Amino acid sequence: MSRDQQRSRARARRDAGPLRQLPWRQVRNPFPPVEVLSADQVEAIHKASLEVLEDIGMEFLDDGAIDLLARAGASVDRGNQRVRLDRGLVMEQVAKAPSAITLHARNAERSVTLGGDRINFCMVASPPNCSDLERGKRAGTYQDYCDFLRLAQSLNIIHFLGGYPVEPVDLPPETRHLDCYMGYITLTDRAWHPYSLGRARIMDGLAMLAIARGTTIEALEREPGVISVVNTNSPLRLDGPMIQGLTAMARHNQPVVVTPFTLSGAMSPATIVGALVQQNAEALAGITLLQLVRPGAPALYGGFTSNVDMKSGAPAFGTPEYTKAALAGGQLARRYGLPYRSSNANASNAPDAQAAYESEMSVWGAVMGHANMVLHGAGWLEGGLTASFEKVMIDAEILQMIAEVLRPIEVNEAAFGLDALREVGPGGHFFGAKHTLDRYETAFYTPILSDWRNFETWRATGAQTAAQRAHRLYKDVLGAYQPPPLDATIRTELDAYVARRKKEIAAEG
Amino acid sequence: MSRDQQRSRARARRDAGPLRQLPWRQVRNPFPPVEVLSADQVEAIHKASLEVLEDIGMEFLDDGAIDLLARAGASVDRGNQRVRLDRGLVMEQVAKAPSAITLHARNAERSVTLGGDRINFCMVASPPNCSDLERGKRAGTYQDYCDFLRLAQSLNIIHFLGGYPVEPVDLPPETRHLDCYMGYITLTDRAWHPYSLGRARIMDGLAMLAIARGTTIEALEREPGVISVVNTNSPLRLDGPMIQGLTAMARHNQPVVVTPFTLSGAMSPATIVGALVQQNAEALAGITLLQLVRPGAPALYGGFTSNVDMKSGAPAFGTPEYTKAALAGGQLARRYGLPYRSSNANASNAPDAQAAYESEMSVWGAVMGHANMVLHGAGWLEGGLTASFEKVMIDAEILQMIAEVLRPIEVNEAAFGLDALREVGPGGHFFGAKHTLDRYETAFYTPILSDWRNFETWRATGAQTAAQRAHRLYKDVLGAYQPPPLDATIRTELDAYVARRKKEIAAEG
Repeated sequence: MSRDQQRSRARARRDAGPLRQLPWRQVRNPFPPVEVLSADQVEAIHKASLEVLEDIGMEFLDDGAIDLLARAGASVDRGNQRVRLDRGLVMEQVAKAPSAITLHARNAERSVTLGGDRINFCMVASPPNCSDLERGKRAGTYQDYCDFLRLAQSLNIIHFLGGYPVEPVDLPPETRHLDCYMGYITLTDRAWHPYSLGRARIMDGLAMLAIARGTTIEALEREPGVISVVNTNSPLRLDGPMIQGLTAMARHNQPVVVTPFTLSGAMSPATIVGALVQQNAEALAGITLLQLVRPGAPALYGGFTSNVDMKSGAPAFGTPEYTKAALAGGQLARRYGLPYRSSNANASNAPDAQAAYESEMSVWGAVMGHANMVLHGAGWLEGGLTASFEKVMIDAEILQMIAEVLRPIEVNEAAFGLDALREVGPGGHFFGAKHTLDRYETAFYTPILSDWRNFETWRATGAQTAAQRAHRLYKDVLGAYQPPPLDATIRTELDAYVARRKKEIAAEG
Repeated sequence: MSRDQQRSRARARRDAGPLRQLPWRQVRNPFPPVEVLSADQVEAIHKASLEVLEDIGMEFLDDGAIDLLARAGASVDRGNQRVRLDRGLVMEQVAKAPSAITLHARNAERSVTLGGDRINFCMVASPPNCSDLERGKRAGTYQDYCDFLRLAQSLNIIHFLGGYPVEPVDLPPETRHLDCYMGYITLTDRAWHPYSLGRARIMDGLAMLAIARGTTIEALEREPGVISVVNTNSPLRLDGPMIQGLTAMARHNQPVVVTPFTLSGAMSPATIVGALVQQNAEALAGITLLQLVRPGAPALYGGFTSNVDMKSGAPAFGTPEYTKAALAGGQLARRYGLPYRSSNANASNAPDAQAAYESEMSVWGAVMGHANMVLHGAGWLEGGLTASFEKVMIDAEILQMIAEVLRPIEVNEAAFGLDALREVGPGGHFFGAKHTLDRYETAFYTPILSDWRNFETWRATGAQTAAQRAHRLYKDVLGAYQPPPLDATIRTELDAYVARRKKEIAAEG
């Protein structure tokens, strides 16, 4: 190789940065979903959940929602805000939700579709703490929040943001959302997530999204660009701020994921099927409300059924019960023609083997259950109480591997390599065969974190575990991070909006 | 609780030993297999592999096998021991192999079926080294060999032994097999594996099995009790000792797993489909030979296609290509109505997150590919060069979780828990509900290794990773180990056999 060629290769490697990752793409899932329930069992769960909504009902802690439900024919007890929904009403409304949703990113190349055979991966969302091997576990700050966004932006396998990757608890809660939205918009070009905690947080999100996209809030209705996840207050309750938030989202045609957090043995019955009945009842109730706010409002069916450790009451994730519930949740979502959300969850306290095997159990449940959105895709640790910088990189490897498994095998005459087999013959090897050399660069998946060197080399260079390598890698990725382009006038306009709103909120306070 | 009750509970916990594991059972896989290839693609691979056997052929380095193949109509070049097999011959012979095999253990309760929807897990097999966190990596000894067998016997999720869990390199190679068989028989009550390295090692195995079962070698033909794995010398070669071993196995109706080790980019073309064509050709050639030795001889189709790191040539396992090949291998095995063998493999140098996520990718490939036998189920590390004591416990957890995922969800009125939902109502919790208390002991999977305690408790008690906990656990299990019962006269007879054979082999030497 000439010195020029060497220089050019070195430059290419440098430009690629520390990550030799797969290119951005929308991932399709070609496999038929695994059905852990028979068709009869799906119907039995469906019917039991409708019975729950008819007989026990659900609490809606918002008078506006109760009015809306009453006008639609629901039986309302205003004294205790209990609403009983008959099955005809529920099924009529749920049928109005679309089966696929396009979520438009600021960078049109990062727009995604939620539905059909698409599977999308999100960052971890909402832990109050973060950790890395150097500084340990600590409360999240805005600096950490921004670093997680920089990682998300750097990773092609992260399709959009499904919540704050860590809660920046150093910022005042009343205006925190403005800074967080600013981070989403300036540090990433992905679609993002405002929290459904009252109407104002959603409207600020839409206003800032409109500025970022150079359009109006009204025009955003035609091109939804934010998505909000609502965890019902299981069992059988939706609180006021949540209702006001999801109402604002639906009114503006932005997608809402209704995800009951049905922890079997705690907030749900101590059987998987009981938790699924409750999950289904709560999801259908939430989606019914969304459709009453705006017929055809985009909605995802969220499944997040897991179980507690019955000895201690501690929540567990990535358990066998969790995996089966993830598969069953997909069957229920498809029963209603709704896009499906699942998660990458685990209960480990460290980015170790347990974190990896519990995460894999969750991810395979999501994949074989045909989730369209995998929330907490990268970085979740400790049952969701901590966002781990190392776990982000471990999960990015796992998600890339899954995406490659889902890519069909190339089958054709050239790939068969019969000529190479003839050339090499019995007892030979293929290292120098033309068929091999032709495929040198692209034949197989190249990992970003896995270490395949032999033991002696690995030991001689420090015997680092995957978590230790992930530590170095996340720092390298942060070091190489470049913000996506953003028009300076848009930036100015966003700054002005945030400044004005902070003043207004302070005045209100 | 009275003091008597407390004492009785404490006793039960002590009797259960350090492992609160699932009971022994045969695991069924209720899911339809995932098809990563279309039916047309399976046929194309099938045809290409028959073309390989017809046009390129395969080397059989044994004159007896060449005679047998020539008599059956194969085209033989005795000069270079190359045999070309026409497709009619191959398909006629392969059709004679049974679709399911029962492997009889010394303890009849530990007998297993290989075929249909059964999935069985084996220990790691054949690494020359072993390791644990305390002593690090070292060459395997007979003491280590016996300790791995003690773990296998202690773990209900290990269905049988598919090879020496570690090679006891402190024993002389000529008589090592006698000591190893003695270990299998006295330390476990599972079915086990003699290596197909010449006829004598197989015949010693059958003789010792016959003594252990109180029967004759001839009678063992009706109740096969050992299984041997043959890795073809890829590409396209079967060596002499291997052929003599598999011939002795087939002659006595003991099952043989024909597993080409088709490492794409090294011993096989640098495409997954090319490696699958070669795998299929070699597997069919081996199974053809088995059927010519004894029509109807039990045979498994072994798939072990992975890929090298194209940058370094290092072998990799649990890669996306590996997982897809595991799925495709199942499709090919079913194409011929043969039981299927896959593996739990990874390339990590430590029992860390990489070891766990690569293992999970392998195991899910095996499960969704409907493997009937998962070799290297527990303990494999470092691309198979090391058997890890900690990894045994990590894998035991993974395999138990998989077995639980495969257990159907209980769906019935009582499980729905509608009365509990009525009792608890919106906003309540289920900790004290009768429905929960009734299910307190058995509701969910109880892990053997995973730590679900909260972070603060975990940190206060040493912040141990899964690997560190696995270290303590494997030692506790060894400490609590009890050998299975064995008649003293059988033991005496086995000792005499081994002593006599050692003398004979020394005299031959």
